[in-house]
Amino acid sequence: MLVLITYDINITEAAGARRLRRVAKQCVNYGTRVQNSVFECQVDATQYARLKHLLLKEIDEEKDSLRFYSLGNRYNGKVEHFGVRRGLKVDEPLIL
Amino acid sequence: MLVLITYDINITEAAGARRLRRVAKQCVNYGTRVQNSVFECQVDATQYARLKHLLLKEIDEEKDSLRFYSLGNRYNGKVEHFGVRRGLKVDEPLIL
Repeated sequence: MLVLITYDINITEAAGARRLRRVAKQCVNYGTRVQNSVFECQVDATQYARLKHLLLKEIDEEKDSLRFYSLGNRYNGKVEHFGVRRGLKVDEPLIL
Repeated sequence: MLVLITYDINITEAAGARRLRRVAKQCVNYGTRVQNSVFECQVDATQYARLKHLLLKEIDEEKDSLRFYSLGNRYNGKVEHFGVRRGLKVDEPLIL
């Protein structure tokens, strides 16, 4: 299934910048960065649970915001993009 | 239906900061800011088309990124939030 992850990490302190790097790093392992703080991850239920667990360990729930949107498997036609692109879809063929 | 709007506006120039303010302002008119660059909008098809049109007029497609995710009407259970909250759901009762 496709899971959309969005986050706001409070970077007013140095520790925030560190959390931001770590959250992004975990997300990169599971999906595609489509915007600065938005990742699309193609995961099964086990991977989703693991990723959620990892991210919840990284954020400070008193300062940061983390959201998950489950888009299911039939997400074609539900997503529209305009403007500059960053990254490729996880399940998109890479044509070289 | 619930539409999720996410954007990255390139603010390396003053014109970018202006676009960012205008995009946020349009989104505020249609929904709730759940994170800095993430809005949830409860719209019908006509409102969705209008909002999309307005936002596409504001962004610079050479520099900015704008994404729409249609979550439909049955989105309960599809969205999970952790950490600090910003705003209320559009269809959530406001208890004072």
